[in-house]
Amino acid sequence: MSETVYLNGEFLPKEKASISPDDRGFIFADGVYEVVKYYKGKPFRFDDHIMRLKNSLSALELTFEVNGLDDVFDILLEKNGLKNKEAAVYWQITRGVNKRMHNFPKNIKPTIYAFVFELPSFTDKLKNGIKVITHDDIRWLRCDIKSISLLPNTMLYNKAIENGAEECILIRNGIVTEATHSSILGVKNGKVITHPLTNLVLPGISRKVIHEICVKNKIEFIEKPFTEEELYEMDELIIAGTGTEVMPIIQVDKKLIGDGKPGNLTRFLQDKFFELV
Amino acid sequence: MSETVYLNGEFLPKEKASISPDDRGFIFADGVYEVVKYYKGKPFRFDDHIMRLKNSLSALELTFEVNGLDDVFDILLEKNGLKNKEAAVYWQITRGVNKRMHNFPKNIKPTIYAFVFELPSFTDKLKNGIKVITHDDIRWLRCDIKSISLLPNTMLYNKAIENGAEECILIRNGIVTEATHSSILGVKNGKVITHPLTNLVLPGISRKVIHEICVKNKIEFIEKPFTEEELYEMDELIIAGTGTEVMPIIQVDKKLIGDGKPGNLTRFLQDKFFELV
Repeated sequence: MSETVYLNGEFLPKEKASISPDDRGFIFADGVYEVVKYYKGKPFRFDDHIMRLKNSLSALELTFEVNGLDDVFDILLEKNGLKNKEAAVYWQITRGVNKRMHNFPKNIKPTIYAFVFELPSFTDKLKNGIKVITHDDIRWLRCDIKSISLLPNTMLYNKAIENGAEECILIRNGIVTEATHSSILGVKNGKVITHPLTNLVLPGISRKVIHEICVKNKIEFIEKPFTEEELYEMDELIIAGTGTEVMPIIQVDKKLIGDGKPGNLTRFLQDKFFELV
Repeated sequence: MSETVYLNGEFLPKEKASISPDDRGFIFADGVYEVVKYYKGKPFRFDDHIMRLKNSLSALELTFEVNGLDDVFDILLEKNGLKNKEAAVYWQITRGVNKRMHNFPKNIKPTIYAFVFELPSFTDKLKNGIKVITHDDIRWLRCDIKSISLLPNTMLYNKAIENGAEECILIRNGIVTEATHSSILGVKNGKVITHPLTNLVLPGISRKVIHEICVKNKIEFIEKPFTEEELYEMDELIIAGTGTEVMPIIQVDKKLIGDGKPGNLTRFLQDKFFELV
C-alpha cells in the first residue's frame, strides 16, 4: 500500500505529492514544523505542540489557521494503518511559493505538508542508555523557534552518527544548551538541572513533562545554565524529546556518566513519563 | 512566453517544475546555492562562484559534479530571451530526496534547480546611495558556507524593508560582520576596512573584486574586525554583492555616514568595478 501524505488540503499518495521549487521552504527554509507522538491512537500533549507551533509561526510573522489539524492527522493515521500503533505525525508549514526575494511577500498562501510514520519507543536504548558526543553549538540565536532551517542540526547529528554515537550535545561558549533535536537535563545530588528557556534552546515539550513530574514528586528542578565541565560530572544525564522520550545518556565523548549505567532518578522519571502516555 | 527553468537535467516550464516535499532542501535546508551575474552574455567571475560552490558542497559533504553548469546556464539564458541582457542565474543544489532523518543519507541523488532572471544594475541607488538598519547578527556560526538555511537572513532583511531601508547590517558581539546578503566595507582615512574571512562571513566575490582593485591601485585594504561605534564613524560605507555591485550606504539607522552622500573612494571603486564587468 502506498503511503498517504497530506499536502495543502489534499490527501494523496506520497509519490504524487509535489511542491514548487520556488516554495520559500525550499529556497529560504522559511517555515516551521512540529512532530507529535501518538500513543494508542491519542496524541500526547497535542495542545502544547499547537501552542509552540503558534509561537513559531508568530515569530516568523506567518499566518496559518491551525484549527482542524487534529482531524487531518487522525485521517492520515487511519489511511496509513497506524491508528492504533505507536506513531508520530510530522508536519511543516512554509510561507508558500513566490518569486525569490528575501523579504516576506504579502498575500501568498502557506504550504502545509504532513506525513505519519510508525514510531515505537526505543526500548533497548531507553533501558541501557546511549552514548553521545559534544560539539560547539553553531546554530543561530533563535533556537526557541522550531524552524526548518535545520542544516546545522543535520551536520552535527551526522557527526554523532559517524562517531558511533546517538546524539550530539551542543555547547555554546562553554555552556551546555541542548542536543541537535532533543533537550538535555542533568541530575546532580538528586536535583534535575537544565538550561533555562531562552533564545538558545527550544522549549521542549518532553522537558516540560519532566518538569511537571518533578514538581509533582517534589524533585528539585533547576533551570540554570551549566558548563561543559559540569556536564561530565553529572550523576545522571538525560536527553528528552518526542521520539527519544526520556533517554539515559551513559557516555559523553570518552567519559562515562556516573557508573556508566542509567541512574535511579532517570528510571523514576521514565516510569512516571510512561504512566502519562 | 512561459519561463523556462532547469531541474535535475531537464529544461522545463516553471509551472511544470516540481520537487518532492521529502527533498532535504525542503525539510532541512540541506543545500547550497550561488547567484552569478551575466554582463553582455558573459558570466562575471564564474570560476570564483564555482570555487565557492565547491567549498560549500565540501563543507556539507555533498558530492555533486559541477562541470558543465556554464553550458546549462547559457541554454537557460537563451531560452528565456536574456542572452544579451543584464541577467543573473540562481541555482541551488540540495542533498536530494529521502525519508526524513537528520543524518546524511548515503547514495541519494542531489537535486539541482536553476533559474535565470533579468538583473539590471540599480542605477539610481548606485548613484545616490541607500539607507540601512542594523541588527544583532543572529545567524549560525558557519556563515562562510553559502547554504540555503537562510531563515535568519530573510527575517532580518524583512526588518530592513519594513523600516524603509534597503539592507540590514549585522553586528555580532559589537563587531560588524556583513549584511543579510552582501558584504560590508568601510572607508576611513582613505583605507578600505572589512571583516576578515572567518566562519562569521561569506567570502564575497564582489568583496574580492574590490580587494583586487585596491591592490592594483595602491589603496590600503585592511581585513580586521571593526565595531558598531566605528561603523557610524566611517567616512564612507559600501555594501558589495552580485546584485548590489558596489553600493554606497549614506545612512545607518538615523545617522548619516560622512556628509550623507556617496564618497570619492566609493565612486572610484564603482568606476573600476564597472570597467571589469
